[in-house]
Amino acid sequence: MKKNRINLNCDMGESFGHWKMGNDAAVMPYVDQASIACGFHASDPVIMIKTIKMALKHDVQIGAHPSYPDLQGFGRRSIPLTPEEICNMVIYQVGALKALCESVNAELSYIKPHGALYNDMLKDLNIFEAVVDAVSCFNVPLMMLAIADKQEWLDIADNYDVPLLYEAFADRRYLSSGQLAPRSLPGSVITDEDEILDQITQIAKYGKVRTLDGYTVSLEADTICVHGDNEDAIQMIERIRETLNREE
Amino acid sequence: MKKNRINLNCDMGESFGHWKMGNDAAVMPYVDQASIACGFHASDPVIMIKTIKMALKHDVQIGAHPSYPDLQGFGRRSIPLTPEEICNMVIYQVGALKALCESVNAELSYIKPHGALYNDMLKDLNIFEAVVDAVSCFNVPLMMLAIADKQEWLDIADNYDVPLLYEAFADRRYLSSGQLAPRSLPGSVITDEDEILDQITQIAKYGKVRTLDGYTVSLEADTICVHGDNEDAIQMIERIRETLNREE
Amino acid sequence: MKKNRINLNCDMGESFGHWKMGNDAAVMPYVDQASIACGFHASDPVIMIKTIKMALKHDVQIGAHPSYPDLQGFGRRSIPLTPEEICNMVIYQVGALKALCESVNAELSYIKPHGALYNDMLKDLNIFEAVVDAVSCFNVPLMMLAIADKQEWLDIADNYDVPLLYEAFADRRYLSSGQLAPRSLPGSVITDEDEILDQITQIAKYGKVRTLDGYTVSLEADTICVHGDNEDAIQMIERIRETLNREE
Amino acid sequence: MKKNRINLNCDMGESFGHWKMGNDAAVMPYVDQASIACGFHASDPVIMIKTIKMALKHDVQIGAHPSYPDLQGFGRRSIPLTPEEICNMVIYQVGALKALCESVNAELSYIKPHGALYNDMLKDLNIFEAVVDAVSCFNVPLMMLAIADKQEWLDIADNYDVPLLYEAFADRRYLSSGQLAPRSLPGSVITDEDEILDQITQIAKYGKVRTLDGYTVSLEADTICVHGDNEDAIQMIERIRETLNREE
Repeated sequence: MKKNRINLNCDMGESFGHWKMGNDAAVMPYVDQASIACGFHASDPVIMIKTIKMALKHDVQIGAHPSYPDLQGFGRRSIPLTPEEICNMVIYQVGALKALCESVNAELSYIKPHGALYNDMLKDLNIFEAVVDAVSCFNVPLMMLAIADKQEWLDIADNYDVPLLYEAFADRRYLSSGQLAPRSLPGSVITDEDEILDQITQIAKYGKVRTLDGYTVSLEADTICVHGDNEDAIQMIERIRETLNREE
Repeated sequence: MKKNRINLNCDMGESFGHWKMGNDAAVMPYVDQASIACGFHASDPVIMIKTIKMALKHDVQIGAHPSYPDLQGFGRRSIPLTPEEICNMVIYQVGALKALCESVNAELSYIKPHGALYNDMLKDLNIFEAVVDAVSCFNVPLMMLAIADKQEWLDIADNYDVPLLYEAFADRRYLSSGQLAPRSLPGSVITDEDEILDQITQIAKYGKVRTLDGYTVSLEADTICVHGDNEDAIQMIERIRETLNREE
Repeated sequence: MKKNRINLNCDMGESFGHWKMGNDAAVMPYVDQASIACGFHASDPVIMIKTIKMALKHDVQIGAHPSYPDLQGFGRRSIPLTPEEICNMVIYQVGALKALCESVNAELSYIKPHGALYNDMLKDLNIFEAVVDAVSCFNVPLMMLAIADKQEWLDIADNYDVPLLYEAFADRRYLSSGQLAPRSLPGSVITDEDEILDQITQIAKYGKVRTLDGYTVSLEADTICVHGDNEDAIQMIERIRETLNREE
Repeated sequence: MKKNRINLNCDMGESFGHWKMGNDAAVMPYVDQASIACGFHASDPVIMIKTIKMALKHDVQIGAHPSYPDLQGFGRRSIPLTPEEICNMVIYQVGALKALCESVNAELSYIKPHGALYNDMLKDLNIFEAVVDAVSCFNVPLMMLAIADKQEWLDIADNYDVPLLYEAFADRRYLSSGQLAPRSLPGSVITDEDEILDQITQIAKYGKVRTLDGYTVSLEADTICVHGDNEDAIQMIERIRETLNREE
């Protein structure tokens, strides 16, 4: 594997009880990292173990995907918790997934917070520190958004000896500041397939992205987040996989 | 410590959110083993970590106390789950507690199922096997009721290399068969304090209990279950502790 | 409407948060009665109000579809509750749905328990009485399985002045005793579309069903339960609707 | 009853499953209005019906006390929901309580949102409108904080024909602006019993309160909120009751 090989990660195990979401079986062969829900925004112990086994079979890295306690809102509601509550809630969920991994001799490789918790830790350094504190118990890296100016986050993670993995998005435009262009801005979401593949090539090969206003900025990314919500999305993942394989 | 020293164990961490239950702080100094709820019948991550820290401070062994998912019924409702659901549900809860233990350098020492799950595994060997399967992932013993004829349970536990710890009850009479007298039988619950202390002495010193019909049968027990529900119960625990200390 | 016109009923509103189940929009035009989940096995307040509005638009009767508290098990787990717990739990759920109906000037027309609660009330008259007690607060009928010997259930319902609606199944064979053939018996589930339509015609036109062993027995039914789980099922509902329209 | 008689209201039914909170039986004889939790921050159907029966026995008015869905946080976490979600969630909870009231021939008299929802509707008129929209389905008044400048809230309530009841706090100081002094300000909470009784007399007899900085402002209140959390609080309620009786 080349030093700069970039990974593909996808959220998995987001069914719940009798309700299905996504098509993990179709996506698993094309990705490198499966971020598995831990029962607070989706999943339950049986869905978790099945998803772990599927990742194991395809030699895909397993990440814990902890969330605020919010099944009804799918973890997309920002619930005001204290840092103590956040830290222990993350340890609880990751510990549960890790034990399920170990029960089938699988390994936990990283932790990526979900939904509102993922967004909140980028906006509030106290929340980020609570998450990092939790992650430091597991000797695995924390996955967060690749942003241009990440020194403050890096300092906190260093304090806890927690390595960071940076993820980029295949289908979102960036600002010149190196931040994601908000969805409210026209053109912020890339819909043309070739432009998506072009952005991925730029990130994987040159560590750069084109911005919404036409500039090119550096973007250091270890992994690219893809989604397997429907048939079209899954075909897109195949094309992204092919593109990345070609670049390596 | 003498070889046959008997322990006292107590259910702990059974508050939930803003609701309090029991008085863990008052009980902790007198017991050897704290069975800590894992969030399915009681407790939440913050209550769990606080209870773990309290046990650590008093040098009390920590046990996981997993349950059916039943906050409203406090885990006392027997919920029909498949062995696969039970096994993974127990791994989930114990993994969560274990990770919280490790976050403060505490150790998980045993697993004791709660309420209806505890009772069901004594009635149904398939349920027992599902629990044992889960426990086998953690390299700790499983705590179960001390019963006279336990060969079938022992065989299953041996298959999974899971050691068993047997617990007796201080305030319940036994049948000549070596089983607990059902609560529906008159005299099955001992209310006189001196008789409770006498039963404990018999179990701890001689490995025997008097039965409801006046006989004496052997009862091999590693630990005695006490409850700290109210002021009277806590005073009783103190007297039990003194009695056991005197016997050693 | 002719006196003996038979209705089609279907379970609806069984999505939850971001998870979808069934295709209520496709089914609604073909049925007479929508049994809407009340949040304990599926649905949430927003899904409930949307389903109510859809029923209102298609002039479909609205039924409450209360359940044991069991989102993860979709209400199919038989949870041991006291009659007092069952009665008040049903009142709670039906009251919630009824208020949502009234908020858009819709009317509650009947109550049909879901899943394990539906089955349990046919096996245990104490559970049936607890449900009937709850239903009696709402001045609507209770929908239950059409069975041959229903006198005991009728007596209890009469005591509480609760009318009963009987439902038959389109795709299940019956025993000579007038009871549903258990799914474990070969041939108990009808898979041939023409045989399903034939059974429906027999029930609707003659009040009779053929039994698994070739006899014909009487079956008094007010409504037939259909399912809209997938594309095939929805096409089957259309054919059933046509068949019933032809018979009227 | 004199025109200006002021009521005492208290939150009730805030136990959950096996966890107890407050002492409703001790408080009920001294208050006029019981705001009963509806299962989202506390309570369950059995606790609700028992609390309703207790209120009925003491001729105490019953209010619904709906909340954000947050058992673990006791409804004190502000959960970001859309107005549509809030409106239907309130209808759901109030409908459930109302049906339980009607099952024992009790009547629903008012609606008072709980905790974070109560606070949020005072800060955000969109949330207030969503609550008012829900309340308008039940033909009862909405209870909210007595504040000096309430025109905007009144306009919205008038649009939906929803009457408002204003509640004051016995043990909190007010600002000259007529708003509650935030708890962070020194002196904002009154701890001296005689000063509490004096404030109540001022509100009940003269419609006025003394402010933190020594002024006196008008405060139109229909009811005073008391709490029965512990033995001292319950004795305080008795003294408040006596003081109010003397003033009438």
